[in-house]
Amino acid sequence: MSRYWSDTVRTLTPYVPGEQPKLQNLVKLNTNENPYGPSPLAIAAMQAELGDSLRLYPDPTGALLKQAVARFFGVAPGNVFVGNGSDEVLAHVFLGLLKHDAPVLFPDITYSFYPVYCGLYHVDYRTVALDDTFRLRPEDYVQPNGGIIFPNPNAPTGILLGLEAVDRIAAANPDSVVVVDEAYVDFGGTTIPTAVSLIADRPNVLVVQTLSKSRSLAGLRVGYAIGHPDLIEALERVKDSFNSYPLDRMALVGATAALDDREYFETTRKAVMHTRARLETDLTTLGFEVLPSAANFIFTRHPEHDGATLTAALRERSIIVRHFKLPRIDQFLRITVGTGDQCATLIAALKEILL
Amino acid sequence: MSRYWSDTVRTLTPYVPGEQPKLQNLVKLNTNENPYGPSPLAIAAMQAELGDSLRLYPDPTGALLKQAVARFFGVAPGNVFVGNGSDEVLAHVFLGLLKHDAPVLFPDITYSFYPVYCGLYHVDYRTVALDDTFRLRPEDYVQPNGGIIFPNPNAPTGILLGLEAVDRIAAANPDSVVVVDEAYVDFGGTTIPTAVSLIADRPNVLVVQTLSKSRSLAGLRVGYAIGHPDLIEALERVKDSFNSYPLDRMALVGATAALDDREYFETTRKAVMHTRARLETDLTTLGFEVLPSAANFIFTRHPEHDGATLTAALRERSIIVRHFKLPRIDQFLRITVGTGDQCATLIAALKEILL
Repeated sequence: MSRYWSDTVRTLTPYVPGEQPKLQNLVKLNTNENPYGPSPLAIAAMQAELGDSLRLYPDPTGALLKQAVARFFGVAPGNVFVGNGSDEVLAHVFLGLLKHDAPVLFPDITYSFYPVYCGLYHVDYRTVALDDTFRLRPEDYVQPNGGIIFPNPNAPTGILLGLEAVDRIAAANPDSVVVVDEAYVDFGGTTIPTAVSLIADRPNVLVVQTLSKSRSLAGLRVGYAIGHPDLIEALERVKDSFNSYPLDRMALVGATAALDDREYFETTRKAVMHTRARLETDLTTLGFEVLPSAANFIFTRHPEHDGATLTAALRERSIIVRHFKLPRIDQFLRITVGTGDQCATLIAALKEILL
Repeated sequence: MSRYWSDTVRTLTPYVPGEQPKLQNLVKLNTNENPYGPSPLAIAAMQAELGDSLRLYPDPTGALLKQAVARFFGVAPGNVFVGNGSDEVLAHVFLGLLKHDAPVLFPDITYSFYPVYCGLYHVDYRTVALDDTFRLRPEDYVQPNGGIIFPNPNAPTGILLGLEAVDRIAAANPDSVVVVDEAYVDFGGTTIPTAVSLIADRPNVLVVQTLSKSRSLAGLRVGYAIGHPDLIEALERVKDSFNSYPLDRMALVGATAALDDREYFETTRKAVMHTRARLETDLTTLGFEVLPSAANFIFTRHPEHDGATLTAALRERSIIVRHFKLPRIDQFLRITVGTGDQCATLIAALKEILL
């Protein structure tokens, strides 16, 4: 604590991201990265940008990237906001659209960055308990609020809320912004269960997505939001009061090309879903309880083995998964769906540990 | 205006960055970019990173980049904070270190983003008038305040405040953070007049720099702050409550290599200073009044020609400079020091216009 700190800094409890270990040869299944590399077209676009043009500022509006997002979803560029990862987008959402007199609502078990944003911007919030099977009940969100936000599928459970239920929440809260944080939605099935289709009829729905998971670009930091132009304008105003150029030239061209490469996207997201199904079966065979996942990770617990102990035992075998020391979920492991080989290594290690 | 907007968004007046025109074949002297490309070693480092590793998150702490900054300045990595351009660093500074009960002080003529940050974070501020020759007077900063910030050299004047005067301001304000925003300092002479040497004795001095100007990496978005570990910790806390991974993998490796390439840095910054001297002479010959510049731009006015009119006339000739419609400086042009050829084109055009 220093006398130079603002009151905001004094009271903050920062977010703690998953570990990014510097050791090689680890089976890294802790931060939900894609086991496949980025689209070759994205790499080629960045290759073309890599050179003297980096002396020039990027386009502060990210116009070409917005057009690519709009193309992919069949919306207008005016429905799109882009940012330096969906974490930055979410930060602007909390300050620009969720900071009101009434509290923001979000699930008790959810992305642990939400309460951190509230601390940063002094946004009041109230958590709403998931039911005993870790499902979100839309009827619980019919209460006074200054906004609603939840990941869909939820993190770290991986459980998907159906589109009809999402729409019911939006309809019941016409005076609040309902933010659907879809970081993992592309792993939700052959038809992607995104809420983007709702924005035409619901001016209060904002969908947030990232290129970190299904586009294999966690290292490039690109996220976006899709919604009514009024919501987008709020985000643009915050962004232009924070950092005119949040996306660098490499990120802009790489992300644009990745979004345009639908074939690679389809191939890799389906491969992840395929491996996930196999992993679910294998874990179940070992006696694990596996929550139904619509994401690129699995949330699972073993009735006879402590979550923290299992995490530590895997780590001794150079396999890193994520464990949250939090109420209700401290017996669970969150395991990223890796390659088939990585998952086989994990299963072999678990067999050994459970013996 | 929308009912979904927070009060913060309603009252914002966002910053307007210099135009990034999409037309080719312009002589672009409006946003103070370096006329020379980035270090070849920076390009090579990014080349090596460009590939499958982009599927993985970057190091959230930016440890290798902090080490490179520390190496360059002979400080400890714990004295260094890194961010997504110095604009993001400055935003965190306003929220984390300058938001107090008393107003922040900055010059009346200065980087026009400062009052915007104040609007975003509801920071009270008071501007302090530069003197008639556009100099900052240290004695004017001896008054109650919650923090002090100024660019050095100042923008858009280009005028440098001597290190002894900077230290006098810091000494007179032991209870406030004094932020020295050194975006342009590397063009301040053969010996760089940075305030980094002050931080050992002044725990309230924070120096902010960018790789956008002297390292030719405006397109990559990297900035940093150097100061006492207590100040750095405040910035880390804000950053970890906003976005865990503000710097992507390309930016981290490119910036690290650029900082380590001292030879290229010396060659290019000296070339810019050399061209600036020639440009000053040529403008003076044409009857312009030229403020003494320690930056990679020149701030100049002609006693017989209106600033806005000159800017428009240059634009008709495909030469873009920056003009600010602001009190006291609306007769000035801010001209980026380009290549020798670009400056010759500018001078030829001005000759034609002044005829």
